[in-house]
Amino acid sequence: MPDFPPIITLLTDFGTADHYVAAMKGVILSIAPQARLVDVCHEVESQNVLSGAYLLANSVPWFPAGTIHLAVVDPGVGSERRIIAGRWGDQIVIAPDNGLVSVVQQNTPAAEIFELTDRQYFLPEVSNTFHGRDVMAPVAAHLACGTALSALGAPIDHPLIIHVPQPEVIENRLVGQVTHVDRFGNLVTNIKADQFREFAPKTVHLKNHVISSLVVTYADVPVGRPLAVVGSSNMLEISVNQGNARTELAAGIGAEVFLAR
Amino acid sequence: MPDFPPIITLLTDFGTADHYVAAMKGVILSIAPQARLVDVCHEVESQNVLSGAYLLANSVPWFPAGTIHLAVVDPGVGSERRIIAGRWGDQIVIAPDNGLVSVVQQNTPAAEIFELTDRQYFLPEVSNTFHGRDVMAPVAAHLACGTALSALGAPIDHPLIIHVPQPEVIENRLVGQVTHVDRFGNLVTNIKADQFREFAPKTVHLKNHVISSLVVTYADVPVGRPLAVVGSSNMLEISVNQGNARTELAAGIGAEVFLAR
Amino acid sequence: MPDFPPIITLLTDFGTADHYVAAMKGVILSIAPQARLVDVCHEVESQNVLSGAYLLANSVPWFPAGTIHLAVVDPGVGSERRIIAGRWGDQIVIAPDNGLVSVVQQNTPAAEIFELTDRQYFLPEVSNTFHGRDVMAPVAAHLACGTALSALGAPIDHPLIIHVPQPEVIENRLVGQVTHVDRFGNLVTNIKADQFREFAPKTVHLKNHVISSLVVTYADVPVGRPLAVVGSSNMLEISVNQGNARTELAAGIGAEVFLAR
Repeated sequence: MPDFPPIITLLTDFGTADHYVAAMKGVILSIAPQARLVDVCHEVESQNVLSGAYLLANSVPWFPAGTIHLAVVDPGVGSERRIIAGRWGDQIVIAPDNGLVSVVQQNTPAAEIFELTDRQYFLPEVSNTFHGRDVMAPVAAHLACGTALSALGAPIDHPLIIHVPQPEVIENRLVGQVTHVDRFGNLVTNIKADQFREFAPKTVHLKNHVISSLVVTYADVPVGRPLAVVGSSNMLEISVNQGNARTELAAGIGAEVFLAR
Repeated sequence: MPDFPPIITLLTDFGTADHYVAAMKGVILSIAPQARLVDVCHEVESQNVLSGAYLLANSVPWFPAGTIHLAVVDPGVGSERRIIAGRWGDQIVIAPDNGLVSVVQQNTPAAEIFELTDRQYFLPEVSNTFHGRDVMAPVAAHLACGTALSALGAPIDHPLIIHVPQPEVIENRLVGQVTHVDRFGNLVTNIKADQFREFAPKTVHLKNHVISSLVVTYADVPVGRPLAVVGSSNMLEISVNQGNARTELAAGIGAEVFLAR
Repeated sequence: MPDFPPIITLLTDFGTADHYVAAMKGVILSIAPQARLVDVCHEVESQNVLSGAYLLANSVPWFPAGTIHLAVVDPGVGSERRIIAGRWGDQIVIAPDNGLVSVVQQNTPAAEIFELTDRQYFLPEVSNTFHGRDVMAPVAAHLACGTALSALGAPIDHPLIIHVPQPEVIENRLVGQVTHVDRFGNLVTNIKADQFREFAPKTVHLKNHVISSLVVTYADVPVGRPLAVVGSSNMLEISVNQGNARTELAAGIGAEVFLAR
């Protein structure tokens, strides 16, 4: 048990206009009244597991050791997909085993993962359509109360991993893609800061835009100009200074980005 | 007083782009700094009391005994409508007396209800347009500090109840309607699981769609197919497996749903 | 140190669909695990400093003494703009020095303001694009742990102030403007309750609408009728009883409003 009350974060695709997130919080607080709840995001695109996987991996590293992250993007709820809980670094993640931990696992392979099977840690009645509330929330609460991961069920070797697009070198170019667009219209790519610096490109190409402004921060180019920058997630991002790259460059998730020397 | 700090939930139609919810939270924490705040939902359709009533009733049962629920959907603010606080089961609800507790009351009649009249529990200055901040938030905070419900004002016999549509048997059909559409496009009806099972229908009808897939969970039909399922609120829901029933079946709140044998 | 755990509020233009707010919260809780976090608003229009300045000023006064307000609307991140922390009344505000504290400062001049320069209170690695997470969040957490404002850097005399439009008397009229539109479509102006009462107008004019209903609350006019009312922020507001003044009067931020005797 930590010195301070345990933190449980919530990442879902439930939106904020229904009672679903509140029901999960009520269940957690009924079992672990001392737990502290932090919303990560409830606006993952409905049932978009890859998008949730990126958000989860970007959020997890910023929390104190021992934080319990509850991630529910679960299009297969009620089917045979497993539900898992594991330790990645000093963080705990609970999620359906449908690929949602893929990016977390890619960054730091799990130290241990267990399948949730011991029903004593679930709600007495488990619905077929809302395991976030009936299985994952109570398990998170029990972990917050000191239950060991290994008590939850049998260990498993590997979580299910979905395809996470990786940049490739093709004919002297480093070719990646846009994986996330944030509220400001910044286009976050899958090219890591290290890869970008090692490749030492002269130009960054996105659709028919050639960006030669490889800069340290937005203000290094005039207002309204596109730029390439290592963003706050340590990935290459395409932005427009005080503008919106998504609309001004007309590009979104999946758009190809390549670096040329 | 509970062993753990009291929980106060907030359900409003204030949205999240203004400072209104924050002002309520600041008022609560100024009086009851130990209170723990949980947002249920702030996106109730503006001034839609019935919609708020459903959300409140779906959220309340999941919280620990003694939780204080603050519900503010209040188109009559500043008029003669009363404000009430009461005990429903082991939960406390504070709300304008405009029908917002109708579904809670229908599920579990109140053990006691009081009209808020003792101004010592209000802010010193009460505006005419924001009783959520000036009356209900401070009352919630005082309750969290141990003030008795009966100190707030005179007991009342019945809260104001608005019409909540109920399913009816008409010519061998059980006829209900869609009462809520969630973020996934699931169509939640007013037909309870018990009514559904007892009626034992062969088919569920929604507009010109005949649904014979009465299933246990989404994955029991192929991706993209409509289905009828007892949802997580224990009501009959019409869904599309990994799809959006609202758009794919072109139906929304108020749409008639009937069961046939 | 207060008797109860310190409160840190968050006001940003980050939206709620990215991991940015969660990363800030994780950073705060890693340094100050006892801190209590309250979201004010994350939907400030992107990079709209004036809009953030109004929201901040409307939210700050409602919190307990000693609350730390973290405000991040920061189009100049990574440029030479300063970051400041100061005491306004009994509240602490941390913000980029880009005008975000303009309305707070106009209401109550700061008792003391310091520029954040001592890097021991920042994260070890400071990105160029996310000072909310790398500078302001850890400073807020250190303040919550008892660090003195004066330890953060050198005192400064005046924060940067942006133009905040003020009402003016022009040819026997008091001319103001709409500064905010809330979720209900209420048009909040920059005319204070005192100015309104002192001017004692017969009519309020907005575009080609003449409003002679100067009322105490919404219900004082028939449903659907426009009215002028002193709103909950103590400013003159134009509303429609149980309607939406923005759409029904076709007016928004910047629209001129004048009072005539």
